[in-house]
Amino acid sequence: MASEIKPPVIILVKPQLGENIGTAARAMYNGGLASMRLVAPRSGWPDPSALKPSAGAYDIIMDAKVFETTREAISDLHLVYATTARMRDMNKPTFTPKQAVEALHDAIAKDVRVGILFGPERTGLENDDLSLVNGLIHIPLNPDFTSLNLAQAVLIMAYEWFQTLNIEGNRKPLRSQPPLASKSELLDFFDQLESELDRTGFLRVLHKRPVMVRNIRNIFQRLSLTSQEVKTLRGVIGSFARPYLKD
Amino acid sequence: MASEIKPPVIILVKPQLGENIGTAARAMYNGGLASMRLVAPRSGWPDPSALKPSAGAYDIIMDAKVFETTREAISDLHLVYATTARMRDMNKPTFTPKQAVEALHDAIAKDVRVGILFGPERTGLENDDLSLVNGLIHIPLNPDFTSLNLAQAVLIMAYEWFQTLNIEGNRKPLRSQPPLASKSELLDFFDQLESELDRTGFLRVLHKRPVMVRNIRNIFQRLSLTSQEVKTLRGVIGSFARPYLKD
Repeated sequence: MASEIKPPVIILVKPQLGENIGTAARAMYNGGLASMRLVAPRSGWPDPSALKPSAGAYDIIMDAKVFETTREAISDLHLVYATTARMRDMNKPTFTPKQAVEALHDAIAKDVRVGILFGPERTGLENDDLSLVNGLIHIPLNPDFTSLNLAQAVLIMAYEWFQTLNIEGNRKPLRSQPPLASKSELLDFFDQLESELDRTGFLRVLHKRPVMVRNIRNIFQRLSLTSQEVKTLRGVIGSFARPYLKD
Repeated sequence: MASEIKPPVIILVKPQLGENIGTAARAMYNGGLASMRLVAPRSGWPDPSALKPSAGAYDIIMDAKVFETTREAISDLHLVYATTARMRDMNKPTFTPKQAVEALHDAIAKDVRVGILFGPERTGLENDDLSLVNGLIHIPLNPDFTSLNLAQAVLIMAYEWFQTLNIEGNRKPLRSQPPLASKSELLDFFDQLESELDRTGFLRVLHKRPVMVRNIRNIFQRLSLTSQEVKTLRGVIGSFARPYLKD
C-alpha cells in the first residue's frame, strides 16, 4: 500500500535562480519527493546551474517539466495547496505543514492527484496564483524572522511529508537494542559492588548502610544496563579489588 | 512562564566554512533560537564570510562563543543531544527531532540547561563527541538520500523547536525532579574514575583504552544523573582510591 503512494508534485512558480531549483530538488529528494514542475523559470530550462547544488538529485532535475503558466502546471491535479510566508487575508483554509501533508496523504490514498505550490524567491505567490489553490500552508516560524529561502521551505514540506510515511516507524523503537542484563546478572553485580564497598569502609556507618545501598542500586537500575555493560562494570569493580599495580 | 523559556544552545563542532555558520544562524533565527557555540571552527573566528549568508541573523553571529573542545563547549549544560545522519551502533536513546525537542522543552521548564550538537559538514560527529551526550537525534529522511547540509539539519531542529512553543496549552504538568548534574560535574567524575582505572591497570592495554573509556562513559551518560548521584558515585570511587582498611 505505502509503496503505491504517489507523492505530491512540487511546483515552483517563476523561480529566479537555477541554483535554487537545484537545492530545492535536493530537499525534495531528502523527503522522498520526486516530481518537480517549473512555471516560467527566469533563466530558462534546462539550466546547468541547477545540477551541482542538487547534490546528486539529478533525476528530479532531469525529469522536471516546464509550463508557461501556473494554471497549466496544475491542470491535471485535483488538490493543490500553496505555501505562503505571511498570513494572507483570503478566505481559504490555512494549514500548518503537518496538517497539510496529512490531508494530502489521505487524499492520495483515495487516488487524488495532489501538489504543493511555492512562489518566487523574493516576492512569493501572487493573488492570481493563490486563487487557483484549495488551501494555504503557513509555516509557523519566529514572527521576527520568517524569511525562508526556497529550498528551506521545500525542505520543511518534504521533511513533514516523509514523517507521514514514517508514522509507524516512529511508533516502534528506532533500532534493535542489545540484550538487557537479567536481574540476576544485575544482582550479582550489586553483591560484588557492595562487598567491595564494605571492604573499603564506604558503607561502614551501619545505620546509613541501607539507604546508601538503595541509592547506589537505584542509580544502576535506572540505566537498563545491557548484559555487556554489566560485564564491563564488573571488570571495573574487579580491578579496584586487586592490589594496585603501582602506588 | 513561556516567555522565560531559555531555548536550547546550538553547538556546531568543527564547522568547515564560515558560510555554513551563517546559514545555520539564519535557520536558528527562523526557529527562535539565539545561542550559538562553535568548537574549533576551521577558518577561525570571527569569520566575515558568515555574515552575508546569515541573511540578517547578525546578533547570533556576533554573540557566538568559541571553544577549543566539545567538552568545554558543553560543560555548563545538563542535557545535550547530538544529531547524527546515520544510525550509530551505540546504546544511547535515539529520538526523532520532534521527540527530542519535546524532551528538551520539558527539561528547560525545570531549569535544566540544554543543547544540541551538530557535527562537521562532511564527516559528522566523532564517537568521542557522542560519548559526551545523553541521546542521539536521528532525522528520518529518504534512506536513499539522507545527505543534509549543516543549515538544513539546524533548520529542521529549529522548526521543530518552534512548534513546541506553539502547543504550550497541550503540554502536561511537570513533576518536580532533583537537579541534574551539569556536564562539568559529570566530566570531573569521569576524570576521577578513569585516573583510578589507569592506576589499577584496568585500562592498561593502550590500543583498547579509547573504546573502553567510551563504553564506560556511555553507561553513565545514559543515566541523566542528578547532581547528588554524581556526588555518591564520586564517593564510591574515592573509597576505592584509599588503601583498604583490612584485607
